[in-house]
Amino acid sequence: MEQALLEHYRAQREANLEGLFELLRIPSISALPAHRDDVRRAAEFLAADLTKMGMDSVRLIEGDGHPIVYADWLHAPGKPTLVLYGHYDVQPPDPLDEWLSPPFEPTVRNDNVYARGAVDDKGQTYLILKAVEGLMAVQGKLPVNVKFLIEGEEETDGGVLRDWLTANGSELGADAALICDTEMFAPGLPTITTGLRGMVYAEIEVRGSRTDLHSGMYGGVAPNAFQGLVEILSGLKAPDGRVLIPGFYDDVEAPSAAELEAWAKLPYDEDAVRVNEIGSKTLTGEPGYTPMERMWARPTFEIHGMPGGFIGEGAKTVIPAKATAKISTRLVPNMDPDKIADALKTAVQALEPKGMTATTRILGKAPASLSSTDSIYVRKAAEAMEQSFGRRTVYQRSGGSIPVVGLMQEQAGVPSVMMGFGLPDDNLHAPNEKFHLPNFYAGIETVGRYLTLLGE
Amino acid sequence: MEQALLEHYRAQREANLEGLFELLRIPSISALPAHRDDVRRAAEFLAADLTKMGMDSVRLIEGDGHPIVYADWLHAPGKPTLVLYGHYDVQPPDPLDEWLSPPFEPTVRNDNVYARGAVDDKGQTYLILKAVEGLMAVQGKLPVNVKFLIEGEEETDGGVLRDWLTANGSELGADAALICDTEMFAPGLPTITTGLRGMVYAEIEVRGSRTDLHSGMYGGVAPNAFQGLVEILSGLKAPDGRVLIPGFYDDVEAPSAAELEAWAKLPYDEDAVRVNEIGSKTLTGEPGYTPMERMWARPTFEIHGMPGGFIGEGAKTVIPAKATAKISTRLVPNMDPDKIADALKTAVQALEPKGMTATTRILGKAPASLSSTDSIYVRKAAEAMEQSFGRRTVYQRSGGSIPVVGLMQEQAGVPSVMMGFGLPDDNLHAPNEKFHLPNFYAGIETVGRYLTLLGE
Repeated sequence: MEQALLEHYRAQREANLEGLFELLRIPSISALPAHRDDVRRAAEFLAADLTKMGMDSVRLIEGDGHPIVYADWLHAPGKPTLVLYGHYDVQPPDPLDEWLSPPFEPTVRNDNVYARGAVDDKGQTYLILKAVEGLMAVQGKLPVNVKFLIEGEEETDGGVLRDWLTANGSELGADAALICDTEMFAPGLPTITTGLRGMVYAEIEVRGSRTDLHSGMYGGVAPNAFQGLVEILSGLKAPDGRVLIPGFYDDVEAPSAAELEAWAKLPYDEDAVRVNEIGSKTLTGEPGYTPMERMWARPTFEIHGMPGGFIGEGAKTVIPAKATAKISTRLVPNMDPDKIADALKTAVQALEPKGMTATTRILGKAPASLSSTDSIYVRKAAEAMEQSFGRRTVYQRSGGSIPVVGLMQEQAGVPSVMMGFGLPDDNLHAPNEKFHLPNFYAGIETVGRYLTLLGE
Repeated sequence: MEQALLEHYRAQREANLEGLFELLRIPSISALPAHRDDVRRAAEFLAADLTKMGMDSVRLIEGDGHPIVYADWLHAPGKPTLVLYGHYDVQPPDPLDEWLSPPFEPTVRNDNVYARGAVDDKGQTYLILKAVEGLMAVQGKLPVNVKFLIEGEEETDGGVLRDWLTANGSELGADAALICDTEMFAPGLPTITTGLRGMVYAEIEVRGSRTDLHSGMYGGVAPNAFQGLVEILSGLKAPDGRVLIPGFYDDVEAPSAAELEAWAKLPYDEDAVRVNEIGSKTLTGEPGYTPMERMWARPTFEIHGMPGGFIGEGAKTVIPAKATAKISTRLVPNMDPDKIADALKTAVQALEPKGMTATTRILGKAPASLSSTDSIYVRKAAEAMEQSFGRRTVYQRSGGSIPVVGLMQEQAGVPSVMMGFGLPDDNLHAPNEKFHLPNFYAGIETVGRYLTLLGE
């Protein structure tokens, strides 16, 4: 990368941070209908920025949900075309009382910016924009062709992007997609993610009585919806971590021997993770697998919350008419989300308790993905990261789900390159989410280097 | 009862209903600290009414919580002294969206008044006041001595009344206590309740990780507090309704053969109860017992709600750090609440899942009670009800808990007479709680008759 570009990026640090703060102040929570206008405001903010930096065809792609921000620059004939992906929506911030500073008022403490969306994914989306902006400012052009696709539903069901890619993917005409929505294996260790878990998200609802009942009057004859839900849930997962849904593990593809060997060399300190990140007495999970296998190569079943009944202060003696569990399963390569959704529904039906009605609503699903480390797009990415961080790039998988990776491959035939700048303690989806500022700046430079390397 | 008194009660119906409406409009929810002032306002409303009708020593007995309304009239030498008990606090009204009219705006539909507290217990407390008021207005005196004790914590822990009775019970000097806080077995069927279940109310809290975690990143290694709670709860109660807490049934006293025989003769239509009151596919509960036994003479375990995690709309993928279950057990005669509370704690500890911390907080406890049908106070009550309703009075137990009954017996040696005017479909503790207006009016007359009969 030429010296002038590097100097530009460094001179722009303060301005770029201010721009990020503006974006972080917009509470673009895609899951909450009350924030619909805020979500759109974040999309418009990015569109204006893309226009200003000289991108073409800037527009919001509308659909049945939150819009996709689209922009392109296609004036590098004979050079590769890269999709630049990101998402501008964020998770809900609750529980609010555990935040040390307000989730939508970005606050810097110890070289980290704290805010909902700081790392997931506003910070990592914005750094791509700023890398491109620098190239345009210093060189007046880009070394490759680019197409921005920045969605606003990554934290919900991603329906608009899914629909658009399904309809238009075959004409996308891109060689690879750059996705900055993952993390580094350890601070300072450049990392490319090659595999992601997929997901089936569902609500399991149990109805017992027609209305809430007095537990004195009816306790002993009326069904208790929560008790029924507890019975179902305890039938779906064993205390040792094994998922009990029939057929759940049938199609699980094991990682290769080479992958397992590489994972064993990664600097994973189980005790440090337990104490510093998780804060529990022991790690848990399926017996017979290493933590890396359990996080990256084994499917899971998690309960996220159980709405219904009386959850206020004090003692209210009610037999709740209805109880719901919000759950998700993470899927690994070769598991079919549709098949798992059906298996879940069948398992819940089979466990339906006496006198009650159990229903399963699927809220979202996405397949797992696994990419090769041999492509030029991955190798140049590793090289760009090595130049920025001064260390050899490692390959990991991630236990998380980025549905667009599977979609991009299936609908557009475009492989994804997952270059992540998050850190393991960035509190994704949790209170006090943060982004390490040195990684924000290094991210801008790395993406600038990557586009430059791809154009050579 | 003399004709003039009866005519007075009938002439006062509209005024008495208006007074009840005023009381029902006060949202005296004892469980919610935000309603502290409202609770006091209800106490002051009753105190003012008692003063106006000519009672002596009217005052609020203060303690560590909501006050007791005290008043007496002790000018009938040689006549019995009766405690007149009631409670002016109510349950929280949620779920609010299931109410057809606002919970604190009393509304009459089909001869019922709908409001939180209509039957439990403002309506049934107020009818005692109005019975006494009529006697004072028409006769200028009462046929017996009375001491009002109206508490404001029946729906929470009743600490103030418990403390006061513990300290002052031995000097209460009463012969019996009249409690109108139960229901009739069927519409038009005069009913006296002889037994009540006790209770242990608790919160079981499970902590897994230190903070909420991303279920993609940590799913497979981090403990899930809800999963742990589900495992504990499924270990506390079997799907067939049996409670699995070791020692739980050890001290259960079975009902007498005579009681069982009388219960078998009560007009209980299992299908009608299931369809009209409960609205479930089947009745549930322990195998081998009739519905009456399961409701009145067997202990239970119920889950009321499970706060924690993500309970909003949409899909949030979080491993919750903390999960809580609000639960209660109903106790039957001869079970010791302290012993059951300890057994619960021990059982939860024994079920503590790997990597997690489980704690049990006891929020309240009260013993069951069982009274004789031989006393003059019960027989006169049955006679008064028969005169009002024109049918033979039946004896039932109730599955609910009225802690004062046990306390009154233990601390003051005073047996309770439970004369109830509620109906089985009055939606106690549920949305659309109501009180049948003909029962409100008949209740006033019945209490007037009862005091008259006791004075003869």
